[in-house]
Amino acid sequence: MPLTILMAAGPGNWERYRAPLETALAKAGVAANLVQEAPPETVDYIVYAPSSTLQDFTPYTRCKAVLSLWAGVERIVGNATLTQPLCRMVDPALTMGMVEWVLGHALRHHLWLDSYIVNPNRIWNPDCPPLARDRKVAMLGIGALGEACARALQSLGFQVEGWSRAPKSLPGIVTHHGRAGLKAALSGADLIVTLLPRTPDTENTLNAETLGWCKPGAVILNPGRGALIDDAALLAALDAGQIGHATLDVFRVEPLPQDHPFWAHPHVTVTPHIAADTRPDTSSEVIAENIRRGQAGEPFLNLVDRARGY
Amino acid sequence: MPLTILMAAGPGNWERYRAPLETALAKAGVAANLVQEAPPETVDYIVYAPSSTLQDFTPYTRCKAVLSLWAGVERIVGNATLTQPLCRMVDPALTMGMVEWVLGHALRHHLWLDSYIVNPNRIWNPDCPPLARDRKVAMLGIGALGEACARALQSLGFQVEGWSRAPKSLPGIVTHHGRAGLKAALSGADLIVTLLPRTPDTENTLNAETLGWCKPGAVILNPGRGALIDDAALLAALDAGQIGHATLDVFRVEPLPQDHPFWAHPHVTVTPHIAADTRPDTSSEVIAENIRRGQAGEPFLNLVDRARGY
Repeated sequence: MPLTILMAAGPGNWERYRAPLETALAKAGVAANLVQEAPPETVDYIVYAPSSTLQDFTPYTRCKAVLSLWAGVERIVGNATLTQPLCRMVDPALTMGMVEWVLGHALRHHLWLDSYIVNPNRIWNPDCPPLARDRKVAMLGIGALGEACARALQSLGFQVEGWSRAPKSLPGIVTHHGRAGLKAALSGADLIVTLLPRTPDTENTLNAETLGWCKPGAVILNPGRGALIDDAALLAALDAGQIGHATLDVFRVEPLPQDHPFWAHPHVTVTPHIAADTRPDTSSEVIAENIRRGQAGEPFLNLVDRARGY
Repeated sequence: MPLTILMAAGPGNWERYRAPLETALAKAGVAANLVQEAPPETVDYIVYAPSSTLQDFTPYTRCKAVLSLWAGVERIVGNATLTQPLCRMVDPALTMGMVEWVLGHALRHHLWLDSYIVNPNRIWNPDCPPLARDRKVAMLGIGALGEACARALQSLGFQVEGWSRAPKSLPGIVTHHGRAGLKAALSGADLIVTLLPRTPDTENTLNAETLGWCKPGAVILNPGRGALIDDAALLAALDAGQIGHATLDVFRVEPLPQDHPFWAHPHVTVTPHIAADTRPDTSSEVIAENIRRGQAGEPFLNLVDRARGY
């Protein structure tokens, strides 16, 4: 009997995901009906985005797992009615997009691209930027996305050091952890990338005090979560020159309100939450694989640890 | 008896290279006097840059090799008095700088960076650029530098195809050659990188006809040689929209004259011949190693093929 898979992700996502999900399920050998509505007690799996009207998971008594379309699960992980296993999206294409965004924006600053893109006085300055190997990068957050970005930066020569709240070792990468480790990671870094999950513990990881630990003129890239940085402290640090530039993809309120000072600040670049877009074809394959695993009694991929919150 | 090594590279290079070269020679176990002047018949090796006043190599009868400080040797390879072995510079740091320049400028266009850097109307457009794997790159020139750039682009996911005048195969990279192959390489490419050596055969590789083979809107990066592209044909293709943008690091006349139309063109970015800077410390090690080899009777690294011109 085919499974009933409820797509609770809003009408826009139904349009984008229906065909790729059906293709991926068929390819994974999973017989299923993908639906937008069904009696709760008949649903085997829920494919979820937090924009859905579904907020009470209690009646989904048969549901084996809730499969998030997005990597960030902070808007659902605290839902007390959600007792089913919850899986985050770790989409290989999402990782690719993130790596490309981080490398592109890192190289923009590293190579002084702006000075060539806008050069009305036609200045021919033969000074060369330093090599990547002469730049230190602090990667705050070394989960799947952070590690992929760290390795891509490292393979270009950047001196990458990772930081996470709890101790974590990665082959070939210097890592730090905890509060003392944050000071060591930030110290001397030319570039700081924030790719931590959003949890109560990571909120305002970069604040007035920790921004003061940075090398004067350091550049910040935030493709992680808006709440990782204290906006007012960042603006003050930018105005003081303590931070040279911030390129931000994520914000506490999105779209970023038109009157937010980030828009007008000469040392802030805003990108519209595009660093890690979930792509329907590849993420559908991840969801289909997790449903196949659930049916085969194998462990789910990317299962969320409810205590840690990601 | 210590060798006599003549540094014929202009006074600025003497200042920059003297100490690193002496360090590198000592490290390589080569006893040598590094000088700016010496009786020609006493000189064992010449370290050369074409800005030198030395243009007649005839009297250097004892000289075992002329070691170019630069990768490009077109200003010396045709010198009929130069019968000594001539070696190009293949500096690992030069390769790193070139890879960084090519990746940075490729990602600028790939990721639509300009639209975020200059966004006075505060437009929040959530469309994502495609992934690198959805972009084709034509790498014209797959020598040491071209191959390194091709591999770096490929490791980010770009579909890279290489082209060279003579057949050449590279593991894992689709390659083309000759005139028919150039059409295949350019066809459908979103990004075209020109890294050919400058020889009479490569002049104007991109001209009115071959630019017409490109995908409309393709972006050109030229960190190779100015003469690889017909300037007038490029400007016409840019004005017609056949080429979307050109980022040029090298020019027929450098510094690029203030009245050259490239400076003012909205779809041209000028960088001041910085893509591949020779760095004194690392290139000194290459030169010292070649002198060590010459003294040990081992083959020189990066020996120029005088018939091909590079």
